[in-house]
Amino acid sequence: MSTLTFFNCFEVPAGREDELLARWQRIEDYMEAKPGYVAHRMHRSLAPDAAFRFINLVEWTDLDEWNAARDAGFAELLASPGGEDFRMAPTLCEVIDSGGAFA
Amino acid sequence: MSTLTFFNCFEVPAGREDELLARWQRIEDYMEAKPGYVAHRMHRSLAPDAAFRFINLVEWTDLDEWNAARDAGFAELLASPGGEDFRMAPTLCEVIDSGGAFA
Repeated sequence: MSTLTFFNCFEVPAGREDELLARWQRIEDYMEAKPGYVAHRMHRSLAPDAAFRFINLVEWTDLDEWNAARDAGFAELLASPGGEDFRMAPTLCEVIDSGGAFA
Repeated sequence: MSTLTFFNCFEVPAGREDELLARWQRIEDYMEAKPGYVAHRMHRSLAPDAAFRFINLVEWTDLDEWNAARDAGFAELLASPGGEDFRMAPTLCEVIDSGGAFA
């Protein structure tokens, strides 16, 4: 598999889940329209007190498209007011092992 | 989608990637044989200095099977010597949004 998987793990102050999701949706909509976007899944932790309340996963065709997608429009969305209240752990990865068949 | 997604984000001291992967593989082999395991993907960050060097993702059929799989054998593997050197951020999640088609 040559695609890349981008993870973003979000810390969310209690009670601000909807705010985070609205911010995320705006960025997700923007990125989905970019060449190189393959698919995404956004996850919510079952435990309200988990270290990471949400984990987003986005598959990209390759590193060049991923870099190109992180353009000025993306930076502007990311820098919009309030974002500093949500800590993120973003990680770009390659798949090194897999098994089974996802539902 | 009613399946659950378990994430485990691993912090790995520099130079100990192989050790972490060997530990992970033993636990993964054990869990794959459990009822309720659907599929997994293990990811390695492209950046050697990423906060999380590896992120594992495992899909499970439901919460009951996931709980049942975390049995005494699993606890024994998890507690084997050396594990305390690798910090983990485990999170059990549900998918709340998805788009595209994964490769």
